Order: sequence, then structure tokens, then C-alpha cells
Amino acid sequence: MGEFDLIRRFFTRPTPHAVLGVGDDCALLQSAPGMQMAISTDMLVSGRHFFADTDPQALGHKCLAVNLSDLAACGARPLAFTLALALPEADEAWLAPFAQGLLALADAHGCELIGGDTTRGPLSICITVFGEVPAQSRNPRHPLVPTSALLRSGAQAGDDIYVSGTLGDAALALQALWGQVALPPEVLVQARQRLERPSPRVALGQALRGVASACADVSDGLIGDLGHILERSALGARVDTERVLPLLAARSHFPGGSVQFDQQLSHAPDAQHPAALALQCVLAGGDDYELVFCAAPAQRDAVQAAATQSGTPVTRIGTMQAAPGLHLVDGQGRTVAPQFASFDHFSASRSRPA
Amino acid sequence: MGEFDLIRRFFTRPTPHAVLGVGDDCALLQSAPGMQMAISTDMLVSGRHFFADTDPQALGHKCLAVNLSDLAACGARPLAFTLALALPEADEAWLAPFAQGLLALADAHGCELIGGDTTRGPLSICITVFGEVPAQSRNPRHPLVPTSALLRSGAQAGDDIYVSGTLGDAALALQALWGQVALPPEVLVQARQRLERPSPRVALGQALRGVASACADVSDGLIGDLGHILERSALGARVDTERVLPLLAARSHFPGGSVQFDQQLSHAPDAQHPAALALQCVLAGGDDYELVFCAAPAQRDAVQAAATQSGTPVTRIGTMQAAPGLHLVDGQGRTVAPQFASFDHFSASRSRPA
Repeated sequence: MGEFDLIRRFFTRPTPHAVLGVGDDCALLQSAPGMQMAISTDMLVSGRHFFADTDPQALGHKCLAVNLSDLAACGARPLAFTLALALPEADEAWLAPFAQGLLALADAHGCELIGGDTTRGPLSICITVFGEVPAQSRNPRHPLVPTSALLRSGAQAGDDIYVSGTLGDAALALQALWGQVALPPEVLVQARQRLERPSPRVALGQALRGVASACADVSDGLIGDLGHILERSALGARVDTERVLPLLAARSHFPGGSVQFDQQLSHAPDAQHPAALALQCVLAGGDDYELVFCAAPAQRDAVQAAATQSGTPVTRIGTMQAAPGLHLVDGQGRTVAPQFASFDHFSASRSRPA
Repeated sequence: MGEFDLIRRFFTRPTPHAVLGVGDDCALLQSAPGMQMAISTDMLVSGRHFFADTDPQALGHKCLAVNLSDLAACGARPLAFTLALALPEADEAWLAPFAQGLLALADAHGCELIGGDTTRGPLSICITVFGEVPAQSRNPRHPLVPTSALLRSGAQAGDDIYVSGTLGDAALALQALWGQVALPPEVLVQARQRLERPSPRVALGQALRGVASACADVSDGLIGDLGHILERSALGARVDTERVLPLLAARSHFPGGSVQFDQQLSHAPDAQHPAALALQCVLAGGDDYELVFCAAPAQRDAVQAAATQSGTPVTRIGTMQAAPGLHLVDGQGRTVAPQFASFDHFSASRSRPA
């Protein structure tokens, strides 16, 4: 089967919102008056971001989900995406479920496939996603950027810090799949679902426009992604580990027994102790695709309303502060050992063990 | 060096036109009123689209050039692009010249780098490019698509067919680099320049809006890309090989001697004969990044004016016709053997010989 046949067969679909979809040299999109286009791109590489034998339907879902998560972080409404796909071979048995997983999520978010490219090569997937947000001529949160989009900049000292949903289960699943920890089968099934079929917080992101002062998605781990907000907002933060650690959904079935985050452990976790692994997963695990965001204390009701409206639980985990740095504290305000590095694709921390 | 440092160092630049550039979860672009965004994406994979040891500066140039060529085919003005890059290692000695080649071409076209992704993996490059074209509520050439963009559809029977620039030299260079043909060094240098540093016909594309009835870029070979116009316009075409074959710039220094496209050869070229290779390169070679377009005979002066205005030579090579199929004819209108397949990434035709 030729390249063009492949594209036609699996990826050509009606595009009721785009001016022009797949099949020409370019796709054409037209923004509604007063709207801006939010754009993000992510490349997923086999062996790096997913196992080569990952269920193609789940992979199709995930590669769009991680992009939609970036739109969510900006509070943008999804519109469309392009797909560039390098494949070792034109294998229908792989392409059919991949397209199914991809397009089911696309349909769920009204996000049209408008163009793409297919080539032979080591399996990798590059998606560029387009969303829209209203322009806003003067936004006091980021005076230089005339937008209603949620940005990483804009947080103020004293703002509350929140995260959506749960954290760390995807990273725990990865550890289990690598054979680094043993999980009961039913726990692994749940955690693996988080790893392979993340739910981008698109509705929450949109509901937070005008409420949150800053926002990022948690793709590389809470510490790293909150770190982006700190850097772009030129602030520091205190995060209460006793509020964060319970966000691990698998905590009650943790390898080595239910994790009790007692004072001593959260002070100086022993890397061999289950609680250290739990802490690592929650704070720096990555692949959560939740939102971490800031909002003034006066917005607490509005934040809860946004959470309710979007059907997304949120948890307040800390406070932005003028003093620089990210300070992990326990419930009594005592510093917790901060030896948790964020996930970095060029560090060795996340490479699959040989 | 970490991923984020890499991105910052080489790819963070001012974006005077974008609302927001690199550094947040999304970039933000706002179209001027009445404008549409033209979007295209292309992935280039090491060993497939370029040699692993290709000069990184040339590669940086080329990977944006092939995307700008898609904008050119639509008559769009380049605005911005995103870059997703998978690299085996974070090698500054490679990244610095790659960024230099990429950004020099971007600057030449006023095309801003607004976002991206960097990851470890087999070398591949995915660029998504954004341009703009005026909306047009009723365009008789394609009544269902309210745009002034040049599309593959829209050609009429009787329209002239043109190509810009020269054809086939990139494919000839590839044959030489694979060791399939021998070229004099100075000829190879010129041909290789076409392969590695194509010049997207951005100015010509814009000048052809309102003049050309249909347009495509010649990336996969003239026959294949003109074939897209035929298919989308539901027409056939006659192409005069005696007008096309001289477009090979290297023809006078061709291996085996200067190629004379006499009647006999163009009728039934022997695959071993230099003229057969020349014909293959010109008609089906790929990597030309010229434009193939149609225009009514009444537009001949306007086409020449567009060519002059954009400083781009164009050659009239044939005629669109109602009868389906692509008919290659010689100067006397006699059919030429049509055994030239288009370049298809999933066919074996273009794989690097083992």
C-alpha cells in the first residue's frame, strides 16, 4: 500500500470546521473574530515515550492526549491537529487501531485532523495541535501578552497552588513495567491506564480562564512543571507534601504495603523505602497530564466552581511566595529533603533500563 | 546539557509577530482580520530523507525549506513554525550549525520559530509551518472553499501547465551520492546544492494568487505532483517532454555525455541509456521543491509578470485536458513511454541501496 493510500484510508475525514482539511499542500483554518490560535507540538518516540509493543489504540489516544493537555494548560478550546507519522512498515493491523484510538479522542474533543505526513522510519509520532482562546487587549496578569490564555507567568506571591486529579500512578506503572517494583495485577491495570490513556484536562483548563493566575500541565513531573510557573512568574513556592502524597491513587496498594507518610519518612526518605518511591512518583514521575495552577485566595470558590463545572477534582497543595525556590514542607512546615529531580528527556533518569 | 537548556540556547528567539512564542505550554498566533491560516507539516527522517552525515547547516535549511514549499504551493505568506526534534544525543557541535541553517532561512522569509519539542531518539525533524492567505467568500475556482489560497483543485481543461525553475538535479545528485552514476565534481556540487539547499518558491506562490487556477509543489516528482492536480481537478493533462527535459540543469554535463533528447529516445528510452536516467530524474525524481501550476491561456502575461516580479523563471510544459490521465508526448504530439512512477515513501523506488 502506498503512502497516499495509507493517508487516505485511515486519516482522511470530514473537517466541518476547517476551511480545508487533508488532501492539499496546506490545510486552512480561519479564526473567529477576536480569537487567537494556541499551538503546541509534541513528538513521541518509540522506546523513549512508549514501549514499541504498546497497544496501538492506546498509543493513538496518548499521542493526541499529550498535545490536548498543552491546550488545556492554556485554557484553549481544541480545534484541529496535524499528524506526522514515521512507521517501520505500512502495517494495517497497527494503523487501524492506532487511528481508532487517535480519532476517538479527537472526536470526543471536537478536534479535527486537518493534515499530516507519513513516512517510513523508526516509529515516531509528531502531533501539532491548534486551539482557540479569546484575545484580551489588557490582561493585568501578563501585561505584555494580550490574551485570555492561561500562561505560566502571571502568578502572584500568596496565590494558592492547586493540582487536578491524581499524580504519580503513571510513573508507578512505568516502574512496574520495567520490573523495578511489583504491583498487584489489579493495581497495575489501573496505574497502566493512567500511563497509556491519560485524560487531558481540557474542560478544567477552559473553566479556569479568568480564575487561575498561572497554569501548566504536569507532563514531566509536578516539581519540574510547577518549576516552570515559578520561573516564568519569578516567584518561589511552598508545597505541602502531606497534601500531595495522598494524590497517588495506588497508595493503599503500594509495593511493600500501604504507604504511611509519617514525619520521619517525609523528612529524609530512604531511597529503598516504598515511601521514597511513592514520593518520587508523585513529585517527579511525569506522564500525569494533570494541571498545576495558581489562583488568588479570593478565587477559592471560583476554583471549586470550575472544578465542579468540569467534573475534575482539584487539590490545594501549597502557596506561591516571593522567596525564590521550591520548598517542600511537611504538615508542620518543616523542610522535606528536596532530592527529586524533574524528568528531563536528555537526562538518564527516565531511560528504560537495559 | 538538559532538554530545556538546549531549547533555550538554540531555539529561543524574539517573536515580534506572534502573540506568544517559545516558553509556555502553547504559542499564540492571531490572524489579521479576513486572513486564514495555511498549515502544513513534514517529518524528515535520517536515512530516509537525508544521509545521517548530512551537513547539519544544510539540513536545518532543508527541513524548513520543504515546509515553506508547501506554503508556496498555496500562495501563503510565511508567518511562523514549530520544530520537534528527536536527537540521538544533545550535541552542540551538531545543534549549533543546524539551528544556524534553520534560522537563517526562517529569517529570510520572516517566519518565526514559536514553539517546539526536543527529545532523545533516532534523528528526525518534524516542522509544522503557518502562513496566511486572504479569505475570499466566493472563489469560482473552488466554490466550496472560501479562500484565495492556491489549491490543487481549480484547474480547467485548456489551462496551460507550468513549472518553475529547474527539475531533476536533486534526484541526479542523489543517484551520484548513492554511487549509481558518476558526475564531474563541479556538476555534483551544483546538483547537490539543489538536493541539500532547495529554495522554496514562496514569492512566486504569492504572486500567483488570482492568476493560477491550481498549484502544487514538486516534492515527490513532477508526474506525481501534477497527478495531485489532475486528481483534485478531475482532469487529465498532456505534458511535452521536449519542454520538460531541458529543465535538468546538469543536462550538458550528463554522465555518458550531453543528453540529446531525440525522438527515438523519448519514445522508448532504454533504462541503461543516460537519457532514460535524465528522463527519470526530471519527471519522477523528487526533491525539486519547484511549483507546478495551471493557468488559463488568457493569463499568460500575468504568469510572466508573476515570474518576473518574484525573480523566478517559469516554463510552460503542457495543457490540461478533459480526457483523464497524464499523457507524455514529444514535440510532435506522439506518446512517450510512461513508465515513470512517482516517488512514494512506502515504495522501494527511493530507498537507499544497501
